[in-house]
Amino acid sequence: MDKTSFIGKHIDYADTPVLWLNIDAFDRNVIRMKEFCNKNSVIWRPHVKASKSPDLALRLINSGAVGITCAKVSEAEVMVAGGVRDLLIANEIVGNTKINRLIEISKIAKVCVACDDEQNIQDISKIASDSNVIIDVLVDLNVGMDRCGVHLDKAPVLAKLVSDLPGVRLRGLMGYEGHVMGLDSDDKRDVSKDVSELISVARRNLESQGFEIEICSGGGTGNYWHSASLGGINELQAGGGALMDVNYMEQMNVPNHEYALFINAQIVSTTVPGQVVLDSGWKTTGRHTGLPKVVSHPDAKVKSLSAEHGMISVDSNHSFNHGERMTLVPHYSDSTVLLHRNLFIVKNDIVEDVWEISGSGALQ
Amino acid sequence: MDKTSFIGKHIDYADTPVLWLNIDAFDRNVIRMKEFCNKNSVIWRPHVKASKSPDLALRLINSGAVGITCAKVSEAEVMVAGGVRDLLIANEIVGNTKINRLIEISKIAKVCVACDDEQNIQDISKIASDSNVIIDVLVDLNVGMDRCGVHLDKAPVLAKLVSDLPGVRLRGLMGYEGHVMGLDSDDKRDVSKDVSELISVARRNLESQGFEIEICSGGGTGNYWHSASLGGINELQAGGGALMDVNYMEQMNVPNHEYALFINAQIVSTTVPGQVVLDSGWKTTGRHTGLPKVVSHPDAKVKSLSAEHGMISVDSNHSFNHGERMTLVPHYSDSTVLLHRNLFIVKNDIVEDVWEISGSGALQ
Repeated sequence: MDKTSFIGKHIDYADTPVLWLNIDAFDRNVIRMKEFCNKNSVIWRPHVKASKSPDLALRLINSGAVGITCAKVSEAEVMVAGGVRDLLIANEIVGNTKINRLIEISKIAKVCVACDDEQNIQDISKIASDSNVIIDVLVDLNVGMDRCGVHLDKAPVLAKLVSDLPGVRLRGLMGYEGHVMGLDSDDKRDVSKDVSELISVARRNLESQGFEIEICSGGGTGNYWHSASLGGINELQAGGGALMDVNYMEQMNVPNHEYALFINAQIVSTTVPGQVVLDSGWKTTGRHTGLPKVVSHPDAKVKSLSAEHGMISVDSNHSFNHGERMTLVPHYSDSTVLLHRNLFIVKNDIVEDVWEISGSGALQ
Repeated sequence: MDKTSFIGKHIDYADTPVLWLNIDAFDRNVIRMKEFCNKNSVIWRPHVKASKSPDLALRLINSGAVGITCAKVSEAEVMVAGGVRDLLIANEIVGNTKINRLIEISKIAKVCVACDDEQNIQDISKIASDSNVIIDVLVDLNVGMDRCGVHLDKAPVLAKLVSDLPGVRLRGLMGYEGHVMGLDSDDKRDVSKDVSELISVARRNLESQGFEIEICSGGGTGNYWHSASLGGINELQAGGGALMDVNYMEQMNVPNHEYALFINAQIVSTTVPGQVVLDSGWKTTGRHTGLPKVVSHPDAKVKSLSAEHGMISVDSNHSFNHGERMTLVPHYSDSTVLLHRNLFIVKNDIVEDVWEISGSGALQ
């Protein structure tokens, strides 16, 4: 695709299905998150696992993010290639192949990783010190999600190991509360508070044993307004609120944001009364968490998605034609953007730029 | 990635998560499907929407498939670029941009498309005749799925239009019974029979009005052993049985096939008793239809998937280490392969080749 050919044209010139960003809405969402962090004296390091776009990452950094959070070494490589110079990989990096890739990145950018295992720390230390580089480490704390991370009692053992070994440098703690995101309002506040207290206890434990804890990292989009204000973390990972989606808006009740990420689809079949069929199914929008929302037509509603088709219920009295377009909001940006290769950047319906989703397919 | 560097090595040299094909199991599955078609005098045109790999498509053709079925113009472009020369796009191709792309493909390969709308047929006719090419058309019949396709009564209207207009040529009918795939055994046989009879009625209707019906196309992997033997269709689209997955094996009860598609993942966390965490979540295996299956460790079972992590319950008495590998079968190949960029071709644990999944991201 010759991207430049779309710049300056109406978004409807782009063939469907097309993924696009309302850049003004995006910027307003970014300002909200950044101002919330500023107000609470928390550093903002937004996760880019959903967008997987270095251009978007750089826009976040230009808007006051200290750097970015990402999920995989390959994702970090893409971000560094795109110009990002300060990254947290909020994940365990296991095996010599991946550690070697990490070392290469660390020669260009500032890189920090999460660790929850002594052997893993030894492996990183060995390869890093052999390569004369230093890898920053956060001790990954299990704050109740029961995925990765060590128990509170074990954190000092890992902190000591990182402090003692060459090639690695202790920067602090990470505690990610994925289990909190889907809770109801009261529970979400209460459990966020528990997590914050747990992180604070872990921090005091470590500090009392003489470790310097510069960073306490955590917080997802589904509870960032709690986690960034409770005092447990001082660096916020939440990034998805910049894009927003139906999941964040309606299931996680993220306050004061607006939809910025959209898909334009077109009608490819009208043979069933009261229904039109769009050329966008779950290979275009994802349906892990639920169905996308039609925002261009008030009475239209997504009934179901198959791989390549979206079945939309419509008012039987209204006539629709092949080729007519509808605009959808994905249910979950994280399971949607990676299906696409380009993100059209749109201002007042005009394409301003086309950003490559170059982290799509970065799984290792 | 330098693909050739992996050829001749054990699959465990490939970093995780890695998607791989047991090529012997694949070939045996292909033989089963092809023999079933031969026995029932049905032509085999397997769908490649799951694999999205031209190399895999060519292997199917070399094993006796007449050509391939695909879902989108962009998918067809990738297949033609990879050497495929006979394609059915089992879908409506709407809008001048896509029709023009179709015309370009038709200059290189034999292309057939499904249509369910008079304006759409007129649009294709206009652009094709202006370009001096002929596009083959199947009238898309709604056989009960209520997605695309016309009602039985309307098929002759479309057939006549295709026959009357320049640039388009009537080849036959298509009736896809997606609504049958998930039914229980008895219902599946009965509804497949109903669909088969409906297609036969439509065919006789059209033939009695003087239309020549060369192709009646349909049949998915979830019911192909019915649809290929009931007499309604004479060209089978089912392709997924060549790869197989948990969905086809356990939910659709496809008989006499074996798993051929696998993901190798590695353990990245062991901090929670009775659980290990793999570096493969729903960004690697998809979870639209269910959870993948661990086949390398008898007592291990996937509990849940997050974006980048697979939580596996294991025997608490068995000790696991970071970096140990597990082999998974995806729950649904169609929602898994498109997440990857390369498919490792493996024979007796040794990498024979690496095929590019070049149709990944082909959404338009």
